[in-house]
Amino acid sequence: MTHAAENGKRGPLDREPLAYLAAALRGVGQVDLQPQLLTGAFILAGLWAAGWKVGLFATLGTLLSTASAYALGADRGSLSRGLQGYSGCLTGIALVGSLGHHPATYVLTAVGCVLCTVLTAALTTLLGPYGLTPLTAPFCVVSGVIVLGAPSFARIWHGAPAPVADPTSGDTGITFSDLWHAFFANVSQVFLVDSWYVGLIMLAGLACAGVRVVLWAALGSVAGIVAAWALGAPTAQISAGIYGYNAVLVGIALGAVFLAGTGWNAGYALFGAGLSTGLTAAITSFFAPFGGHTFTWPFILTTWALLAAVPQLPRLRAATA
Amino acid sequence: MTHAAENGKRGPLDREPLAYLAAALRGVGQVDLQPQLLTGAFILAGLWAAGWKVGLFATLGTLLSTASAYALGADRGSLSRGLQGYSGCLTGIALVGSLGHHPATYVLTAVGCVLCTVLTAALTTLLGPYGLTPLTAPFCVVSGVIVLGAPSFARIWHGAPAPVADPTSGDTGITFSDLWHAFFANVSQVFLVDSWYVGLIMLAGLACAGVRVVLWAALGSVAGIVAAWALGAPTAQISAGIYGYNAVLVGIALGAVFLAGTGWNAGYALFGAGLSTGLTAAITSFFAPFGGHTFTWPFILTTWALLAAVPQLPRLRAATA
Amino acid sequence: MTHAAENGKRGPLDREPLAYLAAALRGVGQVDLQPQLLTGAFILAGLWAAGWKVGLFATLGTLLSTASAYALGADRGSLSRGLQGYSGCLTGIALVGSLGHHPATYVLTAVGCVLCTVLTAALTTLLGPYGLTPLTAPFCVVSGVIVLGAPSFARIWHGAPAPVADPTSGDTGITFSDLWHAFFANVSQVFLVDSWYVGLIMLAGLACAGVRVVLWAALGSVAGIVAAWALGAPTAQISAGIYGYNAVLVGIALGAVFLAGTGWNAGYALFGAGLSTGLTAAITSFFAPFGGHTFTWPFILTTWALLAAVPQLPRLRAATA
Repeated sequence: MTHAAENGKRGPLDREPLAYLAAALRGVGQVDLQPQLLTGAFILAGLWAAGWKVGLFATLGTLLSTASAYALGADRGSLSRGLQGYSGCLTGIALVGSLGHHPATYVLTAVGCVLCTVLTAALTTLLGPYGLTPLTAPFCVVSGVIVLGAPSFARIWHGAPAPVADPTSGDTGITFSDLWHAFFANVSQVFLVDSWYVGLIMLAGLACAGVRVVLWAALGSVAGIVAAWALGAPTAQISAGIYGYNAVLVGIALGAVFLAGTGWNAGYALFGAGLSTGLTAAITSFFAPFGGHTFTWPFILTTWALLAAVPQLPRLRAATA
Repeated sequence: MTHAAENGKRGPLDREPLAYLAAALRGVGQVDLQPQLLTGAFILAGLWAAGWKVGLFATLGTLLSTASAYALGADRGSLSRGLQGYSGCLTGIALVGSLGHHPATYVLTAVGCVLCTVLTAALTTLLGPYGLTPLTAPFCVVSGVIVLGAPSFARIWHGAPAPVADPTSGDTGITFSDLWHAFFANVSQVFLVDSWYVGLIMLAGLACAGVRVVLWAALGSVAGIVAAWALGAPTAQISAGIYGYNAVLVGIALGAVFLAGTGWNAGYALFGAGLSTGLTAAITSFFAPFGGHTFTWPFILTTWALLAAVPQLPRLRAATA
Repeated sequence: MTHAAENGKRGPLDREPLAYLAAALRGVGQVDLQPQLLTGAFILAGLWAAGWKVGLFATLGTLLSTASAYALGADRGSLSRGLQGYSGCLTGIALVGSLGHHPATYVLTAVGCVLCTVLTAALTTLLGPYGLTPLTAPFCVVSGVIVLGAPSFARIWHGAPAPVADPTSGDTGITFSDLWHAFFANVSQVFLVDSWYVGLIMLAGLACAGVRVVLWAALGSVAGIVAAWALGAPTAQISAGIYGYNAVLVGIALGAVFLAGTGWNAGYALFGAGLSTGLTAAITSFFAPFGGHTFTWPFILTTWALLAAVPQLPRLRAATA
């Protein structure tokens, strides 16, 4: 983090409206749990490269949820680190993908972003006593609820988007081309984008956050591919990153952010990354009957469970904040 | 509250069995979060006006759950304010509506009322550290579990009641007649009753609890109608109060009970009321595959989430108890 | 408990690897919440009597999850009382039953056992502030997730096992033969085994843990049968123990372990045992659409709710630990 506030001096990024724009840009990077401006910039570039709708709604979502956090008086420290923007970023992308590009989608994105701020605050209250953070749960709840309720409402529903391929069946043979595509798509699918070069741009952004971060993003991606292949997941889904984006996030969260850099912790992080891959199938099956969306729930549940266990298991050690 | 206990003197309502009956009557009003005897009396009259089965099971449910709280030694303060009766009131209405009027329904209502006392106590323990209260969750859990399990048991199941209209599709044009019917039905549907005059009687009861209470019940009802219309909900459902009863409860809870009377809080309460309307569709879709019931879950989840957020958002302020 | 450590002296069971084997054997008994070696030995004998696959996977599961708790440094007190083994015991049985006897099942059992250790630790953190314990929830979550996700993965899925009879419909006449079979099968079904003589062996093991324990196991079993009969459950399911194993566990937990031995508590325990029987149907219906498994969820949810209520209800009293 190169933020001037760190060493106690006030720089240009501490003055409105630059402070607000910097907080929003950091918010894009915080989807991958990284507060650096450069990381946010790379990732945002990747999102616009993925298409103008994705880029636009990611930008709008981040700006709106950051603004609503300002308006409601959220903690300035969390605001300036971008912690009020990442759920809005993902919510924008999810809503334009699920509801299509209509005027109502803009309104719902705005409402959803306010709700992200509220849920981030609510989860901070509820998880605080356990030392856990909301992760991307506000996004999963808000987008899940909106997408689940939308078909009931004539003014916001314009028919289902093209069906997503069923991630629970298909051929399991794998080629080198599948493997490297999966490696990068795992990174871009964190943002609901299936594209190897978007994943590559994002990895470049993560590299700006440090060697340890990009290394664990890569290790998480590999762990996801290995686990999915070992279990016998359909190749088309592995290649599209469906079985690995949660592993990337778990890799970053447990490998580079929340735990200390010990050997046992590294093994624990890899275990978690593989676990999130298996959990993806279970959660998808759970959601199927009522039309829920998997989003990043496997990452969230895996990370919460594994972090909550740490205080009871002395072999593992939390990072010293 | 005109209760003599308030100013430290003991009045006739502090002596058994009058104290017990007063606690039960307050319990009817506590469904709408109001402890006044007169409010309870109006609402109870409305329930009997809705039909003798509804009135009888509401009365039985409130009496039984209050009695079981006495027997198990629940806190006298919460008892005398009616906080041990409201879940039983709703459980009685829900069970006679879902299971029909059979001897087994009386037995299940009694069991359900004991269970309401237990769950009210359990949720008080679990939510206490966060400063949240059980709201109507004991009712939703108890009635939901009984209605979900009932078809598996030959001695308590006598066939499904007439199917409820599907709240997720239908015509969206709206007339003035629909609007005023919806306004009152939103109030009566809190008690699972679709009747404009029952809603009117209940609003009269809420007026006895103060201008602020009845104002926020009305504002909540309007917010629910506006939100449902804006989203494009089917007119038949709006008119029957299906999309607004949660908004009425959120309006009362956030507008008149749990938050201070500031402008920001008022906006927050209206946001919550609209939100609960949208959430109604999502929860109904979630419950559809396994046959769960929406009941007042949208109110409960909205209110818990929005109240849990307040400590993190300084623009909003809890009411000083 | 005859363990030498109790009176401060170190006996042979405190030395590795005997301490490890003793902890594992106690773990088998801890499925029924009993730490005695002899109880564990009887129950393990019953499991081998039920079939070599059940016996083998119960043994492997207990050994592996106890070992993983050692490796991760779990609390020695909980380890030596067997509290790190019981979830693994049940997970092994559930996985071989659901996935069949294949090489992949051994690997998944090992992974599942590590995960049981992690979830036991996580739930200990999360439930600690409320004075609740994880009970068999780690088993239910781990086995539920694996069995739910398995059909998506070609390398671990070998087709569904023979379908379990639908527990929600069927004839309700009952004979004496049904009754005594149900009484013992309720005890064996705690371990997913339908066999009256296995249940008898296990009851013998529970008798080694004391009169109060075996009495409450029997009372729970009877309460389950009475409740299931009164509700009108299908006889075939009652007789197979499907409607009573949760009642046995609730009986032991509330009657003999967590609450003091008072009259009110005894009534409360019987109420809970009957309740878990009704809850079994509701949870089975909830799980049906997405293919979840009921396992011991009715016991867990009933016991958590009833124990969380105790501090608010002075008529009831927790056992003095």
